[in-house]
Amino acid sequence: MYEQRIKTVRRNLANRGLEQMLVCDPRSIHYLTGAFIEPGERFLGLIVGSDARPTLVLNALFAAPADAACTVRSFTDTDDPLAIVEGLCDADKPLGCDKNLPARFLLPLMERGAASGFVLASDAVDDARAIKDDTERELMRAASAANDAAMDRFRRLVHEGVTEADVAGQLEAIYRELGAQGHSFTPIVSFGANAADPHHEPDDTPLASGDVVLFDVGCRKGEYCSDMTRTFVFGEPSEKLREVHDTVRRANEAARKLVAPGVRFCDIDAAARSIIEEAGYGSYFTHRLGHQIGLDVHEPGDVSAAHDAPVQAGMVFSIEPGIYLPGEFGVRIEDLVLVTEDGCEVLNSYPRELVSIG
Amino acid sequence: MYEQRIKTVRRNLANRGLEQMLVCDPRSIHYLTGAFIEPGERFLGLIVGSDARPTLVLNALFAAPADAACTVRSFTDTDDPLAIVEGLCDADKPLGCDKNLPARFLLPLMERGAASGFVLASDAVDDARAIKDDTERELMRAASAANDAAMDRFRRLVHEGVTEADVAGQLEAIYRELGAQGHSFTPIVSFGANAADPHHEPDDTPLASGDVVLFDVGCRKGEYCSDMTRTFVFGEPSEKLREVHDTVRRANEAARKLVAPGVRFCDIDAAARSIIEEAGYGSYFTHRLGHQIGLDVHEPGDVSAAHDAPVQAGMVFSIEPGIYLPGEFGVRIEDLVLVTEDGCEVLNSYPRELVSIG
Repeated sequence: MYEQRIKTVRRNLANRGLEQMLVCDPRSIHYLTGAFIEPGERFLGLIVGSDARPTLVLNALFAAPADAACTVRSFTDTDDPLAIVEGLCDADKPLGCDKNLPARFLLPLMERGAASGFVLASDAVDDARAIKDDTERELMRAASAANDAAMDRFRRLVHEGVTEADVAGQLEAIYRELGAQGHSFTPIVSFGANAADPHHEPDDTPLASGDVVLFDVGCRKGEYCSDMTRTFVFGEPSEKLREVHDTVRRANEAARKLVAPGVRFCDIDAAARSIIEEAGYGSYFTHRLGHQIGLDVHEPGDVSAAHDAPVQAGMVFSIEPGIYLPGEFGVRIEDLVLVTEDGCEVLNSYPRELVSIG
Repeated sequence: MYEQRIKTVRRNLANRGLEQMLVCDPRSIHYLTGAFIEPGERFLGLIVGSDARPTLVLNALFAAPADAACTVRSFTDTDDPLAIVEGLCDADKPLGCDKNLPARFLLPLMERGAASGFVLASDAVDDARAIKDDTERELMRAASAANDAAMDRFRRLVHEGVTEADVAGQLEAIYRELGAQGHSFTPIVSFGANAADPHHEPDDTPLASGDVVLFDVGCRKGEYCSDMTRTFVFGEPSEKLREVHDTVRRANEAARKLVAPGVRFCDIDAAARSIIEEAGYGSYFTHRLGHQIGLDVHEPGDVSAAHDAPVQAGMVFSIEPGIYLPGEFGVRIEDLVLVTEDGCEVLNSYPRELVSIG
């Protein structure tokens, strides 16, 4: 499996005229070798070069799994890891660089002349990661199944007067009980008018009757991420809320129904956006329709008007239309879809209709 | 306050022959402007140049607080933020770069020739951040006071058969109840032999009688971090555990007692290390004594044999000696200290003696 992934990356590099690359994103290194290490401020790099197996340069503090699909070169806190990297690079050829390679490593490598040039090359790995293989598809399904089960418990945490922060603080334990590793991102729990800010952070706002209750939540399970949004109402919904919620639900549905190999990302965005525009709320849908997801909760290649590439079988992305009415409320309904050979599989099955809770 | 901080950074830059810098660490930007923005994959940069106020280049998705101590230049997802940065830089002078500036921004800026050179300059900000001002000292005290209160509740979560992951999943809610924003880092909860790995991640290990119970935990409050470790015993301690725990406690105490302006970091490390060596456990204390802390849980300039600079009033760092006996148990006792004019203030007051819990 890892050999196949490395082969794909090498092919992608060759298409860009490159024969060597320094990968430093821990999730990409995990994808390519099976070793998952969070190095903090310390150096961590995987050199994909002419050798059959890539070489992982890592601090001796961290243990690489014995079955990792790479050669390991370790260093201590008093060694210079960039000297090892320099030794592994061909100084006469350009080096593909991870887009996240920080200046504290990149500038010294340039000064040493470790390669003939330094070019961004994360696409070579990201394009491989975008197409989930069978193992990954199973893991994505399992993470979203846990998220469905969790949502059903999260809505039960809600009662008159509870604060967003109170509720948010209880979510992680539930994820862990469901076998997940924890959050895949900081959860959003928004009540009432707070939901009109798509990036609202849980605060001390207490829940009041008639408020919307928006959960934008995800867990990490087997290292893969889930991400789902549901918007409930506490008590009786207003007529306006019913209408807005129904509009968002229809926008979500229209986009999901369109997904199939060859359809462009921008057209999927447009399918949802046009429904919201027709309902007169176009200017209140202020963000892209979605993002790709996998080992990271946001992976490159978004679902937006600016992205006119076609989707491919094996891609997984979010469909998350929303309407945000400042001072009133916000509604977002988000699902993950996996592109299949002839359409898509929706990874979330939690109901999307407006439900009154509490 | 922010003006003073910017002035210090400008002076530090001037000492390095620089007149302009691109800061991208969100915590450093918060420190210098009061605006805290987590941009995810999007560009975020603060240009400290010749203008009186620094300029924040940020995505229009994020709102800068109205009272932020900077000029704001915003861009949308379809604009090019690096063109704005280029316009703000003097192309004939070198640009100081944030150590975390990722290659995906640095390489294009180099290609455009936005500056005459690109040099690492985070020290200019990090040196300023290392000396906590009065406002920050109060915030550091408050974060550690919350951590003391939390520790007293964490130890009560422990009972026969509970797993590390069960306990770890309950900590965040307690922090939030105590007014903290959540964890300052992924908590370490280790039982028995697992505690012999300083970086052990909570797993399904159930608690058994006689196990050590190690909590290495911290919260973020008012954006500032706490970090403390205590090692308890579940049931009756063995004679060996008593001895090891006492050795670590004395090492922690010796280091704390030595801290005062002018004392070198390496000598503080040595004070703790020599006590552990004298007790015959020198080779089982496998890491540096500590790290600086503030807006980030790990800040540059560690407490280790390799760092021979003197500590200065206003610095805050951890003192965390440990003894790790593979297959048996591990003990670590960690406190934060704030260097004062004539000694230090210990920010944690939770008891350090070996306590039997459960």
